Amino acid sequence: MQSSPLLEHLIENLRCLPGVGPKSAQRMAYHLLQRNRSGGMNLARALTEAMSKIGHCSQCRDFTEEEVCNICNNPRRQNSGLLCVVEMPADIQAIEQTGQFSGRYFVLMGHLSPLDGIGPREIGLDLLQKRLVEESFHEVILATNPTVEGDATANYIAEICHLHNIKVSRIAHGIPVGGELETVDGTTLTHSFLGRRQID
Amino acid sequence: MQSSPLLEHLIENLRCLPGVGPKSAQRMAYHLLQRNRSGGMNLARALTEAMSKIGHCSQCRDFTEEEVCNICNNPRRQNSGLLCVVEMPADIQAIEQTGQFSGRYFVLMGHLSPLDGIGPREIGLDLLQKRLVEESFHEVILATNPTVEGDATANYIAEICHLHNIKVSRIAHGIPVGGELETVDGTTLTHSFLGRRQID
Ligand SMILES: [Zn+2]
Ligand SMILES: [Zn+2]
Repeated sequence: MQSSPLLEHLIENLRCLPGVGPKSAQRMAYHLLQRNRSGGMNLARALTEAMSKIGHCSQCRDFTEEEVCNICNNPRRQNSGLLCVVEMPADIQAIEQTGQFSGRYFVLMGHLSPLDGIGPREIGLDLLQKRLVEESFHEVILATNPTVEGDATANYIAEICHLHNIKVSRIAHGIPVGGELETVDGTTLTHSFLGRRQID
Repeated sequence: MQSSPLLEHLIENLRCLPGVGPKSAQRMAYHLLQRNRSGGMNLARALTEAMSKIGHCSQCRDFTEEEVCNICNNPRRQNSGLLCVVEMPADIQAIEQTGQFSGRYFVLMGHLSPLDGIGPREIGLDLLQKRLVEESFHEVILATNPTVEGDATANYIAEICHLHNIKVSRIAHGIPVGGELETVDGTTLTHSFLGRRQID
């Protein structure tokens, strides 16, 4: 039992953060109370703002508090004619850090998983098709994770691209099979971009 | 660069938590946005409440949002005649978990450190003396950390107890020298309570 119900409540709520168990939640709560209350207040405000105001870009589905995100709004990126399809927003961060890609993105927010009721609609493929029709892309780069589900999703999207006569490629070399794109180092990711191969 | 300034701000602010670097801050922010926005909102509220309302108990200096904390207010604990002096609130949690101690506490919120300008007043020894005079304690148990500073602080408080003719003891066996009380396992801590020795 903590001496304070509010402290107990804070420790409990800190555990909603991934990787935070009871011990580290307690350490975090004491740290803030003892040494950084203004930091704790700032974090509370940042959380409230982010949770209530951040939605999804109407073009790429990445997180943004605007109607259209910074990347989609960038004219240089619009002119590249390249569209990179990823599973999660964190994948965009990883790719941006390689500096190898200057096109736009499309975020599936997951992958096809029929057994879990996640079909084409749930990962936004209706919006993706609409964009393929309305905009003129030279190439769609499929950067879903090299897992069974990621590969299946990539194949499904490749077929859609073929229907629209758009060149489509899959990033390839270096990503360990079964691994997650988000955790791959920049060099490996750069190689996999340069070594992408067209899907016929 | 994140696609969203609010997201970037959140990631930055999550780093005020101890042990949270840029990578895990990003993972936490995405996790909340993707899977647990209500958890994020609850955490924000818990933080605001805790940071703004939790103060220190007027008797033991532990964290509480009340004038006097649950432990100090407990009549059974008041009747025990035992007072345990610890450095930090987390030490109380560790001791409570052993179930070996049913008295009250006094939290120094640190230890004597003259070079850092932390003297007797800064660790609340004026309040401790007042309690020793006004209440009737059979024994004061010194459970400061077994470090140079913790030992020096214990010796200083032992002298105050001697002046007031109050029996004083120091918890002893089992705590690794140089270690921190908060991280010791329950059995070791239990032994150190049972093996406490009077300071003459
Ligand atoms: Zn966008
Ligand atoms: Zn108290």
